[in-house]
Amino acid sequence: ECFAGTHLLIDVREAEGLDDIKHIDRTLRACVEAAGATLLSIDLHHFTPNGGVSGVAILAESHISIHSWPEYGYAALDVFMCGDAEPQKAVPVLKKAFRAGMVEVAEIRRGKGMVG
Amino acid sequence: ECFAGTHLLIDVREAEGLDDIKHIDRTLRACVEAAGATLLSIDLHHFTPNGGVSGVAILAESHISIHSWPEYGYAALDVFMCGDAEPQKAVPVLKKAFRAGMVEVAEIRRGKGMVG
Repeated sequence: ECFAGTHLLIDVREAEGLDDIKHIDRTLRACVEAAGATLLSIDLHHFTPNGGVSGVAILAESHISIHSWPEYGYAALDVFMCGDAEPQKAVPVLKKAFRAGMVEVAEIRRGKGMVG
Repeated sequence: ECFAGTHLLIDVREAEGLDDIKHIDRTLRACVEAAGATLLSIDLHHFTPNGGVSGVAILAESHISIHSWPEYGYAALDVFMCGDAEPQKAVPVLKKAFRAGMVEVAEIRRGKGMVG
């Protein structure tokens, strides 16, 4: 099957550390490394008053994004990677880093039929 | 129904201008304006040799991402917005800007049950 990339929609619930921008920066970098991807840039924004963080790591293989709502212990992440990277390897990194009680993952293949 | 945000997965096919980073920058800004969202930062990367562009606009309401494969006339976009923004309004902007023969949109509500 030919497609452009694998896109994981990851919902992290009952989680901690979602208002800690340095921890989130470290965690996204750890995801990039676990997946065997290449980081091009990372840009995180911290919101007031809830402490939520929105940001994206742009990769040679696509991107990882996060939007966190620390007051609900919830974060929505996307891990989108093409090529030989292994996006699924980011999931246990996220679960551990945020001490998440629940992690839901939906996998979508983007650009089906694009190549070939 | 309570949820964190509306996430549109948009696949643009038979499209033009996908190797033009300035055009993509302008188009993402037009999407932000059409949706009534607030731009915090925008970061686009141009790849060689295919001319593809990867990048993200981070918004006060979440983000818009794009990954383009100009050699296939294909781009994968995500428009993720929470609050009062109207992400659906980005779809006709993208269709017109890239003269797309086909635009597929999947709508996912992220963080169901998070609030309330």
